[in-house]
Amino acid sequence: MSAGAAPARFSLNQETIRQWSMPELVDGCVAAGVGAVGLWRDPVREFGLRETAKLVAGAGLRVSSLCRGGFFTAADPAGRATALEDNRRAVAEAAELGAEALVLVSGGLPEGDRDLVGARRRIVDVLGELAPWAADHGVRLGIEPLHPMFASDRCVVSTLGQALDIAEQFPAQQVGVVADSYHVWWDERLPADLRRAGAGGRIVSVQVADWVTPLPAGVLLGRGQLGDGCIDLRAFRELADSAGHRGPVEVEIFHPGLWARDGAEVLREVIDRYREHVA
Amino acid sequence: MSAGAAPARFSLNQETIRQWSMPELVDGCVAAGVGAVGLWRDPVREFGLRETAKLVAGAGLRVSSLCRGGFFTAADPAGRATALEDNRRAVAEAAELGAEALVLVSGGLPEGDRDLVGARRRIVDVLGELAPWAADHGVRLGIEPLHPMFASDRCVVSTLGQALDIAEQFPAQQVGVVADSYHVWWDERLPADLRRAGAGGRIVSVQVADWVTPLPAGVLLGRGQLGDGCIDLRAFRELADSAGHRGPVEVEIFHPGLWARDGAEVLREVIDRYREHVA
Repeated sequence: MSAGAAPARFSLNQETIRQWSMPELVDGCVAAGVGAVGLWRDPVREFGLRETAKLVAGAGLRVSSLCRGGFFTAADPAGRATALEDNRRAVAEAAELGAEALVLVSGGLPEGDRDLVGARRRIVDVLGELAPWAADHGVRLGIEPLHPMFASDRCVVSTLGQALDIAEQFPAQQVGVVADSYHVWWDERLPADLRRAGAGGRIVSVQVADWVTPLPAGVLLGRGQLGDGCIDLRAFRELADSAGHRGPVEVEIFHPGLWARDGAEVLREVIDRYREHVA
Repeated sequence: MSAGAAPARFSLNQETIRQWSMPELVDGCVAAGVGAVGLWRDPVREFGLRETAKLVAGAGLRVSSLCRGGFFTAADPAGRATALEDNRRAVAEAAELGAEALVLVSGGLPEGDRDLVGARRRIVDVLGELAPWAADHGVRLGIEPLHPMFASDRCVVSTLGQALDIAEQFPAQQVGVVADSYHVWWDERLPADLRRAGAGGRIVSVQVADWVTPLPAGVLLGRGQLGDGCIDLRAFRELADSAGHRGPVEVEIFHPGLWARDGAEVLREVIDRYREHVA
């Protein structure tokens, strides 16, 4: 690897530089010495599943994760059946791409529903069907807790501990957890839960973004560039490592400011920041 | 009490109808049969501390809480000394008003600081001086956990469990906790933590507001009118009651839409919603 190459475990989630087409992403990563990418289903579908798999594998890139399946919380069985069907497609896509994990975001409360406990229970029900099916296709599922500010509309799984409570109902080779610094940094139980996740062989993906305020309207696009916020990202990565994580550390920042700039320049900056604050 | 009077334990936090002056607040509450109010230091200071105390007591209103003290997390001793001094003034104000609790919001991370554990430790240090002093003045302190989306800039205490971990280092008569549905609704440990708080005699204030999305920029003014969101407010109030809470249930909604309307009309609506969703 050249002197300027990205650190060995660095992975770029493609949403960080969403202005790049799939070929630009692959070329940009190869040029920067990046060894792994996290992909999203929509751009993969747009470029073509087979074409993406071929392009990425041909460039020697690992696919650290595919985002995302999930949304299991529909109150009606028909809604959950539709979700299961879509997740089976996601599994097939992850298999074709050779993704190391399919990231699952559980889904929020259905419209008009106030029953968090019930919604959390339905996740387990759907996983009971999906997890063995995914394992048969060689795909490992990763439950990602989202920050509690998303509990109502995106993800009723709000802590790594909750994600583990669900994952541990399945074999570790089928279901693990995704630890994203942005979602879990505030949780004082994080060190203990990461150790628990590592001891059980459940860490399937580690992602990093920084926490900055003020949050924008809708809060989805409020993630900060590494080092711009208040998360001790190095301590987070070290916690994951000392819990046994050896895989990629994926940078996933949703930030319109980064999307408006030249992709190669953004990647250089992200890699520099990663060196300074994470590696 | 007249047939139309507010339910017995209903309390109105004055920020819910911040367009009201102090006399309008008192008159409006008396007219609606409201028995208790939660006050804020700024409007109290503006109207005059002694004048407010006289007005409120003369109208026979209880003061369920005074908001707020806290902001204990300054990294430098001088900053913490300033905070302590301000909190001593807040205690004196709470004593003069006969407030049942002084609500404490811990403070966020100091600028450039990434050490959550250290910030949480400093809260205990300052409380070590403040709590006995407040007790000498007949004022009980209530640590309020804020939603984790405020962890960096307002309050490093993010769960009721964390608030209890701090409160329990002091006698129950000195330091308790404040449970606000808006901040803690998402936490699956809430039922257990409320039971723990009640068993220890630590519930000093219960507040309600609903959770609605999308959140506005800055997220502070995103609270929902009771019943407009996804929190099971009745279950929350029942949890607090079955944990032993017998005091007021304070409605605290920061919502520009409510502030733009006629105060008496807003109060009628809040009371109706309280009957429907909380009582």
